[in-house]
Amino acid sequence: MPQSRFILALDFPVKREILEELSPKVHGLKVGLGLTLDLGVQGVKDLLKGLGVEEIVVDFKLADIAPIMQGVVSRLSFADSFIAHSVIGSKGALLDLKRFLDANGKKLYLLGAMSHEGWDDSLNSYTTKVILDVDP
Amino acid sequence: MPQSRFILALDFPVKREILEELSPKVHGLKVGLGLTLDLGVQGVKDLLKGLGVEEIVVDFKLADIAPIMQGVVSRLSFADSFIAHSVIGSKGALLDLKRFLDANGKKLYLLGAMSHEGWDDSLNSYTTKVILDVDP
Repeated sequence: MPQSRFILALDFPVKREILEELSPKVHGLKVGLGLTLDLGVQGVKDLLKGLGVEEIVVDFKLADIAPIMQGVVSRLSFADSFIAHSVIGSKGALLDLKRFLDANGKKLYLLGAMSHEGWDDSLNSYTTKVILDVDP
Repeated sequence: MPQSRFILALDFPVKREILEELSPKVHGLKVGLGLTLDLGVQGVKDLLKGLGVEEIVVDFKLADIAPIMQGVVSRLSFADSFIAHSVIGSKGALLDLKRFLDANGKKLYLLGAMSHEGWDDSLNSYTTKVILDVDP
């Protein structure tokens, strides 16, 4: 079977049995803020423990200064990677976060555009520039 | 004594005694994601209970589509107001969040610019437009 390209988004609590059934079929799991608020960090860790997925992505859409984002990712040791907003820029934000995650063997995904109606696509040339600069 | 214009930012756990001492001197408390990850939602609620401040602001710098942001604010009933990024735009995001918060008697603050070096001030005319549109 070819490696799965699916990532299962978890935005609220799901029964462990369901995760055990679906995990072998997906590449990874994406953990949302709602789930984390519902279960707490330890609860999320327990829910995902030993599922054997390739990647656990935390999707809080981080968009703060570097010290705050670094504080957040430090608290989520179960994650392999994190999603942040490119629009906040490099210096004092994403460059520092990237360096911090690199040093801790974690990955960064940068959001360049969103799909809802209100997103302004004229921002995309700027976000592309930031993404190339940060090189996640 | 004139009403205080200070808001105390809580990005990590602080002793309750310290909060009891400082609370009468501030207008409000600003709850960060780090604190919330450390204590959990119930832990934050317990820490802040009965402090008698005018306003508890949740500063997660929300920057997601409306259903996700509404899910997050719904889980934080102790808060009076929330901070979100204006750059994500109105339709399908901030307009819906504003309507949802209005219906629940909560307030919205919109971030128009950030202070770190990497923030690009050329975004500010766009964020100003969104803020005027959402009218938080």
